[in-house]
Amino acid sequence: MTTTRKWLLKSRPHGALKDSDFELVSVPLPEVGEGQLLVKLTHFSFDPTQRGWLGGDTYLPAVPIGGVVRAGGIGEVVASQHPGFAVGDIVQGTFGWQEHWLGDGTTETGPVTKLRAGVTPEQALGVFGVTGLTACSALPEIGKPTPGDTVLVSGAAGATGSVVVQVAKALGCKVIGIAGGPEKCRWVVETAGADACIDYRAGNVARQVREHAPKGVNVVFENVGGEILDAALANLALHARVVLCGGISSYNDTAEDRSPGLRNYMNLTVMRGRVEGFIILDFARRYGEGVAALAKLMAEGKLKTAEDVAHGFEHCPATLRRLFEGRNFGKQLLKV
Amino acid sequence: MTTTRKWLLKSRPHGALKDSDFELVSVPLPEVGEGQLLVKLTHFSFDPTQRGWLGGDTYLPAVPIGGVVRAGGIGEVVASQHPGFAVGDIVQGTFGWQEHWLGDGTTETGPVTKLRAGVTPEQALGVFGVTGLTACSALPEIGKPTPGDTVLVSGAAGATGSVVVQVAKALGCKVIGIAGGPEKCRWVVETAGADACIDYRAGNVARQVREHAPKGVNVVFENVGGEILDAALANLALHARVVLCGGISSYNDTAEDRSPGLRNYMNLTVMRGRVEGFIILDFARRYGEGVAALAKLMAEGKLKTAEDVAHGFEHCPATLRRLFEGRNFGKQLLKV
Repeated sequence: MTTTRKWLLKSRPHGALKDSDFELVSVPLPEVGEGQLLVKLTHFSFDPTQRGWLGGDTYLPAVPIGGVVRAGGIGEVVASQHPGFAVGDIVQGTFGWQEHWLGDGTTETGPVTKLRAGVTPEQALGVFGVTGLTACSALPEIGKPTPGDTVLVSGAAGATGSVVVQVAKALGCKVIGIAGGPEKCRWVVETAGADACIDYRAGNVARQVREHAPKGVNVVFENVGGEILDAALANLALHARVVLCGGISSYNDTAEDRSPGLRNYMNLTVMRGRVEGFIILDFARRYGEGVAALAKLMAEGKLKTAEDVAHGFEHCPATLRRLFEGRNFGKQLLKV
Repeated sequence: MTTTRKWLLKSRPHGALKDSDFELVSVPLPEVGEGQLLVKLTHFSFDPTQRGWLGGDTYLPAVPIGGVVRAGGIGEVVASQHPGFAVGDIVQGTFGWQEHWLGDGTTETGPVTKLRAGVTPEQALGVFGVTGLTACSALPEIGKPTPGDTVLVSGAAGATGSVVVQVAKALGCKVIGIAGGPEKCRWVVETAGADACIDYRAGNVARQVREHAPKGVNVVFENVGGEILDAALANLALHARVVLCGGISSYNDTAEDRSPGLRNYMNLTVMRGRVEGFIILDFARRYGEGVAALAKLMAEGKLKTAEDVAHGFEHCPATLRRLFEGRNFGKQLLKV
């Protein structure tokens, strides 16, 4: 093979992602220089935060127009002049949407790492990846649940939410999930083990929360935002903690077409509650600790995962769109 | 005198307060029993939170229909069979809108207290009352400002905001106020000592905040909510703390006519910021400490106050409305 393909960002997306925002190009396969390694990608991770990276500067600089679309992935080292990597190593990093990644062992978000023995690529990108680590860091750090607390989790059938549900159960909490549609809700209760799951498509989420938690919720783990978060704010218990992890409902907003704003925020004062934002990158030094905690839960049979795997490098843009259409079930991945 | 007057809540207010929500009644002056004291009211405090008390259950039970309108006040003991109080004592408590209060020394919000020597009724209800104490408790407890931080204060010409401005300056912060109209803004800068004051009536508050704080604000002290808070959320610095003390812009909202919701809340995640609610009643055990801190600032000439004093018991409802029309300048009081 003498060429390799990349997905470039062609134009700054406006609203929902379109095929025309991206461009698939073929370029010569680069040569490996001193200190470099060449990775052939096998799996990509799809995460709501990627929409932010494409839209503008956030907690990371925006992906530049004409740049490779930023994404986490896993691949195999196919050539190495780097002392730390050998051909055949399976590695993980923020490699971007490209068939091959060439570099010195560091990406924009940190060092390239080798997969631990016994961990599959699906697990490494999902439950042991940023989505799972987010769950097991943000819930205790910001949510501070104690046994007996009622924990409300939106996006409960998603990559992060499904892990939050199970970590909260393991901590002795009552857990109420929120997900879209009866099939996801059934999974959240029967497989992930939530005490209840609210189908937001059935309407009046605030009333449904009140029915399941008449005394209010102590912890909210928020992945969706908008009306779902507003329903949570309407049902806070005294001193409630809201972990603001994501707000996928508004990521496609434009200046002309914006989601409804939050209206129940003054209940934070009435209940002396707190909303706090969380980004997993701040907790990088504790990834090892998080992986160990999740691996222990998994070994005890207390952590079930769901992966939603697409196929074919050419389907990267369409696969990313699935997240914003609520179509993914568990962690969205793509196998090259 | 054999009769005394009371303002009762006639109907649950809907939207802006109307005269017809209240009823002025005359009743026989009650007799003082064993362990009781009779207070003749001289001054009332007017606070945005009263709108909440009239609307429904919040952090205190709603004022019942037919009940005396809940309000803080100051009066003189005119009869006493209580061992702790003598005729002539000047006392403070949540006495409600009535010319005379009869009780055993305790109100719904705590014990009746005597005014400290040298403190005027205006000071006791304003700077040393719940509004001033809110400022000096909530700013350090929730806002956690450090010298050099930029602190944004909405309602900066109001009873609480004006004290926050001065406490923040004394702590070595850069302070940006937000107030309505050039006259209030001038007072916030020239008398209270803010570094700048934004006139929200001049429009585009978010842009004005950005001009004064291009690197973002570290602490937001919020008294107004709605679009003002949204402008603050658009301008957070990393790890910003938002003290959600009040949201007067939405207190008159009804189900049919609601203020615009918050849209910039996801910036809390991008900036790992925090919004936390505050109610001064939680800090009652530290009132003495707060009064001492404020008295020290005042003695050093670092604390200027403004009081807006109405006159006449019959004007209680109209005086309360002034707060929601942005007409008060500093602490709103009424002298009977």
